[in-house]
Amino acid sequence: MSESKGRVLLAYSGGLGTSRDAHLCMIADRAENTSCILAWLIEQGYEVVAFMADVGQEEDFEAARKKALAVGAKKFFLEDLKREFVTELIYPALQANCIYENVYLLGTSLARPVIARGMMAIADREGCDFVSHGCTGKGNDQVRFELAFYGLKPDIKVIAPWRIPEFYHRFAGRQALLAYAAEKQIPVQQTAAKPWSTDENLFHISYEAGILEDPDTTPPADMWKLTVDPRQAPETPQALTIEFAKGLPVKVTVPDENKVYTDGVEIFLALNALARKHGVGRIDIVENRFIGVKSRGCYESPGATILRAAHVDLEGLTLDRNVRALRDQFVTIELSKILYNGHWFTPEREFIVSAIPASQRTVNGLVRLELYKGNVIIKGRSSSEGLYDEKESSMDELGGFEPTDTTGFIQIESIRIKKWAQANIRKGQAGIEPKDVYGSRV
Amino acid sequence: MSESKGRVLLAYSGGLGTSRDAHLCMIADRAENTSCILAWLIEQGYEVVAFMADVGQEEDFEAARKKALAVGAKKFFLEDLKREFVTELIYPALQANCIYENVYLLGTSLARPVIARGMMAIADREGCDFVSHGCTGKGNDQVRFELAFYGLKPDIKVIAPWRIPEFYHRFAGRQALLAYAAEKQIPVQQTAAKPWSTDENLFHISYEAGILEDPDTTPPADMWKLTVDPRQAPETPQALTIEFAKGLPVKVTVPDENKVYTDGVEIFLALNALARKHGVGRIDIVENRFIGVKSRGCYESPGATILRAAHVDLEGLTLDRNVRALRDQFVTIELSKILYNGHWFTPEREFIVSAIPASQRTVNGLVRLELYKGNVIIKGRSSSEGLYDEKESSMDELGGFEPTDTTGFIQIESIRIKKWAQANIRKGQAGIEPKDVYGSRV
Amino acid sequence: MSESKGRVLLAYSGGLGTSRDAHLCMIADRAENTSCILAWLIEQGYEVVAFMADVGQEEDFEAARKKALAVGAKKFFLEDLKREFVTELIYPALQANCIYENVYLLGTSLARPVIARGMMAIADREGCDFVSHGCTGKGNDQVRFELAFYGLKPDIKVIAPWRIPEFYHRFAGRQALLAYAAEKQIPVQQTAAKPWSTDENLFHISYEAGILEDPDTTPPADMWKLTVDPRQAPETPQALTIEFAKGLPVKVTVPDENKVYTDGVEIFLALNALARKHGVGRIDIVENRFIGVKSRGCYESPGATILRAAHVDLEGLTLDRNVRALRDQFVTIELSKILYNGHWFTPEREFIVSAIPASQRTVNGLVRLELYKGNVIIKGRSSSEGLYDEKESSMDELGGFEPTDTTGFIQIESIRIKKWAQANIRKGQAGIEPKDVYGSRV
Amino acid sequence: MSESKGRVLLAYSGGLGTSRDAHLCMIADRAENTSCILAWLIEQGYEVVAFMADVGQEEDFEAARKKALAVGAKKFFLEDLKREFVTELIYPALQANCIYENVYLLGTSLARPVIARGMMAIADREGCDFVSHGCTGKGNDQVRFELAFYGLKPDIKVIAPWRIPEFYHRFAGRQALLAYAAEKQIPVQQTAAKPWSTDENLFHISYEAGILEDPDTTPPADMWKLTVDPRQAPETPQALTIEFAKGLPVKVTVPDENKVYTDGVEIFLALNALARKHGVGRIDIVENRFIGVKSRGCYESPGATILRAAHVDLEGLTLDRNVRALRDQFVTIELSKILYNGHWFTPEREFIVSAIPASQRTVNGLVRLELYKGNVIIKGRSSSEGLYDEKESSMDELGGFEPTDTTGFIQIESIRIKKWAQANIRKGQAGIEPKDVYGSRV
Repeated sequence: MSESKGRVLLAYSGGLGTSRDAHLCMIADRAENTSCILAWLIEQGYEVVAFMADVGQEEDFEAARKKALAVGAKKFFLEDLKREFVTELIYPALQANCIYENVYLLGTSLARPVIARGMMAIADREGCDFVSHGCTGKGNDQVRFELAFYGLKPDIKVIAPWRIPEFYHRFAGRQALLAYAAEKQIPVQQTAAKPWSTDENLFHISYEAGILEDPDTTPPADMWKLTVDPRQAPETPQALTIEFAKGLPVKVTVPDENKVYTDGVEIFLALNALARKHGVGRIDIVENRFIGVKSRGCYESPGATILRAAHVDLEGLTLDRNVRALRDQFVTIELSKILYNGHWFTPEREFIVSAIPASQRTVNGLVRLELYKGNVIIKGRSSSEGLYDEKESSMDELGGFEPTDTTGFIQIESIRIKKWAQANIRKGQAGIEPKDVYGSRV
Repeated sequence: MSESKGRVLLAYSGGLGTSRDAHLCMIADRAENTSCILAWLIEQGYEVVAFMADVGQEEDFEAARKKALAVGAKKFFLEDLKREFVTELIYPALQANCIYENVYLLGTSLARPVIARGMMAIADREGCDFVSHGCTGKGNDQVRFELAFYGLKPDIKVIAPWRIPEFYHRFAGRQALLAYAAEKQIPVQQTAAKPWSTDENLFHISYEAGILEDPDTTPPADMWKLTVDPRQAPETPQALTIEFAKGLPVKVTVPDENKVYTDGVEIFLALNALARKHGVGRIDIVENRFIGVKSRGCYESPGATILRAAHVDLEGLTLDRNVRALRDQFVTIELSKILYNGHWFTPEREFIVSAIPASQRTVNGLVRLELYKGNVIIKGRSSSEGLYDEKESSMDELGGFEPTDTTGFIQIESIRIKKWAQANIRKGQAGIEPKDVYGSRV
Repeated sequence: MSESKGRVLLAYSGGLGTSRDAHLCMIADRAENTSCILAWLIEQGYEVVAFMADVGQEEDFEAARKKALAVGAKKFFLEDLKREFVTELIYPALQANCIYENVYLLGTSLARPVIARGMMAIADREGCDFVSHGCTGKGNDQVRFELAFYGLKPDIKVIAPWRIPEFYHRFAGRQALLAYAAEKQIPVQQTAAKPWSTDENLFHISYEAGILEDPDTTPPADMWKLTVDPRQAPETPQALTIEFAKGLPVKVTVPDENKVYTDGVEIFLALNALARKHGVGRIDIVENRFIGVKSRGCYESPGATILRAAHVDLEGLTLDRNVRALRDQFVTIELSKILYNGHWFTPEREFIVSAIPASQRTVNGLVRLELYKGNVIIKGRSSSEGLYDEKESSMDELGGFEPTDTTGFIQIESIRIKKWAQANIRKGQAGIEPKDVYGSRV
Repeated sequence: MSESKGRVLLAYSGGLGTSRDAHLCMIADRAENTSCILAWLIEQGYEVVAFMADVGQEEDFEAARKKALAVGAKKFFLEDLKREFVTELIYPALQANCIYENVYLLGTSLARPVIARGMMAIADREGCDFVSHGCTGKGNDQVRFELAFYGLKPDIKVIAPWRIPEFYHRFAGRQALLAYAAEKQIPVQQTAAKPWSTDENLFHISYEAGILEDPDTTPPADMWKLTVDPRQAPETPQALTIEFAKGLPVKVTVPDENKVYTDGVEIFLALNALARKHGVGRIDIVENRFIGVKSRGCYESPGATILRAAHVDLEGLTLDRNVRALRDQFVTIELSKILYNGHWFTPEREFIVSAIPASQRTVNGLVRLELYKGNVIIKGRSSSEGLYDEKESSMDELGGFEPTDTTGFIQIESIRIKKWAQANIRKGQAGIEPKDVYGSRV
């Protein structure tokens, strides 16, 4: 092909991992997947630049670089995005107590915006009009990546091979992909791929697909990678304290290790290590993907699980009741959806995130915890904010207000309730007799 | 006093417990508290009928009956409200995943409506124009009880001694109350009261006040009553399965005990026993009372903790994504507030609860769990509802829809995002460079 | 073509209207559009059954029938869906005060579910595996129709010619379509099509596209069809009363016409006639389509505008404050979105609608109104529900509660506010000096 | 009385108005009310400083000053708070489209925070430990004032005579108050008070109480003060344009008067004058007071009605769909409640308001309107924001995206709907047959 169709920036994967977003995950690991895509793009007449992001996953970046260049990439970029991942994505999500469908801490979702931004910056600099990735056509990550691309660089053109019929029909089975790899002299790892796919970063690891697709299959014990089995965790609880300023962790103290951490990334990594040792942070769920498909996923989010528990606890002591209620109902829920659905670079994210600082102004203080065999146990908390007042809440002494005030409060609160009750009685619908709780509906 | 001022139905407490709502909780246990109130009401010229509800708390009802009559109650009523507590209050709350401020399962709040309704039924039957209780003037329970009274019987008159200055000034210290008890020949328990107050029922126990008022004080190990310390729990995990129909537990199987439970109350009690043994269900929080005061509470909700985890999990498999999201944001949050604030007998409860059945129509299936040293571990789940489709979610095969459809989906989803990004670029506010996440606010 | 590809049920349009959903609306009126599609489907080898719904639009159904059969339809079905349109769609929306983006009363959205259901019933009966329509690929209605089809009959196959490249490229201009019509001997109306497209039913008419695409173009005076210009409306106001039972209109009285209407459909049509005469119900907006595109639309919803004003007013008198607030925030907003986006036959609609009856149990009473040159003026309202109490709200006499109770209420309400203010003062952030309202944010 | 009990700052009212918050509104106009309170406070041994705020109401401030000093006030302060009323309260409420219970624009609520802040500043400066007002014990304004006082100066002590039994029993009728006025030589206005009470400022006037307490009584024609009757309004529509920047009006042009206004307060007053002439801005409702009592109120909000209509319209053109939806559901509704309930100086207001700027960044453009006999008619709108794209929304040409993309979008959107429909069919609950819309509930 004498003339290039253009330059493509390819989200490349390294040598060992398997990707949750690889279509055919048990057939091709992520390396084979994006290496084959690399070769295929060149075959289609594109010039390809390979891109990798270091978001804290365990990966041999140098091997990946060599492989990408060997397969034919014009250039290879490795961007260390760990710090912005922690400070720009993880910490706002922590401040907002983000959680998806009550359980999932959004570890994969949180990494996508920084990776996508890293890619768009390189695409800009390297003059790439196209971007490509190895995500399957059924998952969340294709959506998250592409919406992020468009939110940053609306004229970027996306090549998603696993959604292009001529690609996915050609490589419909493991043999076809292996044959192609052999033809293109792409080195293939010899060990059998695990029967599930994973996505890893410093926040978490996810497990999906393969044998996990039966939601009643218990994950094998050797699947879990980032935490020990609670049964193998130490018999002795681990004490630690976390100090927050404006809702963010600023100091972690581990007394029996005589250690103190104050850097944002360091804090996160230290908590990961502690949680790993004590079996903290495993979940196993069926979740609803953005595209409307139900999907089973297992996750380990070790440090994040501790941080969330501590942050939620400290808000009890330091956050006003009404702010907390409004924040929970709107910011927590909406930002979690925004993250899960890949809507980070959108006006609604800009809008919702703008309300976080006012909600965290008073979230200052210290939480004492223990880790023990999978449990995060709150031992106590303190703050100088002054919204908690022992004397006022005390059952044992007067303070703050007169008991007679409460009589007035209850009388006023009951005005409309009495009116409703009187109307019920007039209609013969008084509520005194037990009945079906749903029975008073009509 | 020759002529009675009227008949009072008094919420009476038994012989051993201490009440979270006793003003002066370390001075007077609940028995002394309401026994003294009983005597005082008689002294004021009222005829008093004593009422106790059996909502599953550990209590010597017969001793209480004798004491109440000895002090001067005209009659004594003990109502067994356990079944309606479980079926009318606990189960709707379970279906809606109710939880207050992310953590508290609302055990005390849930019992109040059935107790209040039991009282109003007796008040009706016995011709009591007045009702009285021993709640402090600073807590939630006075509000919950009284709003429930008014929502059922809007003309009832409430006598709340701990909010009447002549009462609370007269009994401002332990000595005054003990002297009064001696004067009135009220037997007083000899053992020292515990340095906190409690409220117990079959759902949970709460600990509050006293030494717990310092939120940084770790509760003493011997405080916890309904669960063993996770450290003392068995080394071997306990397997069990819970089957749900329309969001309610209908069968609990404990394989290694060869036991099956199918009755609503039995299920709850069996789960309590299992959770107790395995240290499941302890929390320690600072919460926001309805009256706007922050308060520290510790709670054990053993069986409820298991049920909630199982129910939330099964909804992942069987509940539509959009129904779940709407239910979480509206029903879960609003019903939890309604319960906490004692608004059960109100039009808003009637309204919110009416939406529960439609949300639970499909929540049918089985969850397999393990209990282990404080952990509730989901092992798997199954259902014949058919909303989960392995083939559709599979990364390994085509199914359900074409990968090309997702391209269209992403294109349509990106229309407004691209417009926003283009406007940002025109204004020189493109998002490609990292920046303070809150920085794009203005 | 010897063998049929299958049977298609085609949503056919009659002789005179222009459709908002016709692609190329100024080129082809709706009749030409679906008549050409009819011919084209036959050409492709399908057997076609034509379907029309009478939802109250002004149309010559007999002419349409003849034309459809002349072009080659095997059968023609005309379904009168007016009553179910009113009772199953319009009235729940009225009870919930549905409105999209503060202004649009959802007239087109409301008709789609009944039309789609009518089609699926015929498709079932006539053994049609396919369904087809003439909607453009950019609008809301394609989405609404198709999601409704799938929600009723998930295995139906949709043929949307204006989204099939071979169709929309072939008929890319008026000449091509006219030539095709001539070739197929499809009679074409001689009068010039209006420079906008419309959709009409008994609830409303919409105007869109064409010259209206410039959002700064004022619609021409002769565009409006269902209402007179307020300037041409009578100088004398029109009095009427509407009686509601459980939130639904059950009696409309027009005193100076000496008329009373009690039938659901009759009520709606009578209000349409009155509103038309008095210029009530015009709007002109830019709205956000489900697919994320902004779009300008003008609408006339005459009777619905009166009904909504009266219903909202009566709720002031008869609906509990908290139920109203929760209903507004959740049911009104969510059901409006559900309707607009065509999600009627979904689990979330089932869920949200299930909460309506409990919200309307008390909405019983009478509203007196006047119509005058575009205005709907509330003159008074009455009800025997008893939630309003003159004595209680009176500024001129005591009643219902003691003024001293309010002191207690305010004291309790201020507890957490004082704590916050004290903390502000300690931090030097007291609010007494005027400042930028957004300035206290950080 | 030899020694003062302390200094009281009294919210004093002038000579002519009647106050909605005066208890006994038909007996005593506001002047008599607070003049009598002034005399009474002095009688109780307080030193009194009188305070008036100019928030745009029609009032003879000089006469009021003379009267206050004559009755015995030590000092008299008149604060002009019009500008901060407009810029700090009205404009954020406009940006957020605030409205209470669908109809009320919150004119009284909006003035309270600036008045309360003005008072607390004087109380600080003048060393007043006490503050007093003439509000009734049943209304909203007592709550709004006092919560604002406490949110600014938590140690202020409030004297609310109409909630003090010895005061309200002593002055239980007009004669008692007139006799007291005579005794204290307080001049009393001779004209009969109107049979309702009012509250006026530059935003609006409210009418309440008296004959309006019957919700079925039509207000008399001569009650309305700030707008002409639409029937008396000019036959010729009035054209005007409003330009917004970041959601705030920055330029109003009245072509046929050849006038342009650019100052915030000027804009508001000019719109008031135009709306008054054309009969724009009257409402008549039954609303729910914060204390849970239903109350009938009539309001004229002339300029505000125009501004809201224009702002809502421009948001259609310039605000992202998802931001609009989230803002409507959370900020609009919550801030309206906050304002109505007097929670301006609270952490939740700080939180909610902090989200406004991000929602208004793109709300820039021009709206053309006409006023005609009570109607605000949108004629067109324009903006250079670029979120609206004629080509993209056009039904007449391709643009922005491929029609085939919509096919993919609909397929993906229908995945979970089809699953639900299939489950319904399996259960014999397919939705094809018409049925009671609420019937699928259980």
